[in-house]
Amino acid sequence: MDTSTLRPNFESAFELLGKRWTGLIIRVMLSGKQRFSEIHVVIPSISDRMLTKRLKELQTMGIVQRRVYPEVPVRIEYELTEMGKSLAPVMDSVQQWATSWA
Amino acid sequence: MDTSTLRPNFESAFELLGKRWTGLIIRVMLSGKQRFSEIHVVIPSISDRMLTKRLKELQTMGIVQRRVYPEVPVRIEYELTEMGKSLAPVMDSVQQWATSWA
Repeated sequence: MDTSTLRPNFESAFELLGKRWTGLIIRVMLSGKQRFSEIHVVIPSISDRMLTKRLKELQTMGIVQRRVYPEVPVRIEYELTEMGKSLAPVMDSVQQWATSWA
Repeated sequence: MDTSTLRPNFESAFELLGKRWTGLIIRVMLSGKQRFSEIHVVIPSISDRMLTKRLKELQTMGIVQRRVYPEVPVRIEYELTEMGKSLAPVMDSVQQWATSWA
C-alpha cells in the first residue's frame, strides 16, 4: 500500500486533525515554509519529540513535505503540500466557530 | 466553574472534534433531533458504551442537549444546541477536503 498519501475520509480526517497540536501546526504552516525551530517558536509548549512525531505523521498523510538542502550546516524545511494547503478552509471554519463561542 | 458550556478555543475545538466518532455523531445530528437508537442505526459500528460517552462529552461542552419526555415508556431525545448547529460549516469544510483528496 502506498502510504505516502493515505486516502482521508471524513472520519480519518477528523482523527488526524484532532490529534493534539496537529491543528496548530497546520495553521502555523499555512503561512509558508518553516524550519523546525521556527514552528517551535510559535508553539513553544510542544516538545521536540512531539513536534517531530506530528511532522512525521503529517508527512505520511501527504500533508507536509520535508526538504533537505545539502548546505553546511544542512538546512531542512517543512512545507504544506497542496493537500495540506487545501486545509485552509477547515482551519478558518474551526477558528470562526471557536471564536464565536469563546 | 460552569462546565455546562466549556469555552472552546482553536486547539480544544480540534481536540473535541478529533475524538473518535465525534465528527460523525455531530454530522448525523445536524439533520435534527435523534434518539439514541436512531444515531446508532446510522453509525452501527459504534458501541453503546462509546456513543453514551461521546454524547455525555458533547453535553458537557454545550454542543448537545438531552430531553427526557415523561411518557411511558420514557422518551429521550438528543439535539444539537445552537453552538452545535453552528458546527455545520466545519463539518462541510472537512467533508469537502476529505472528498477532494479521497
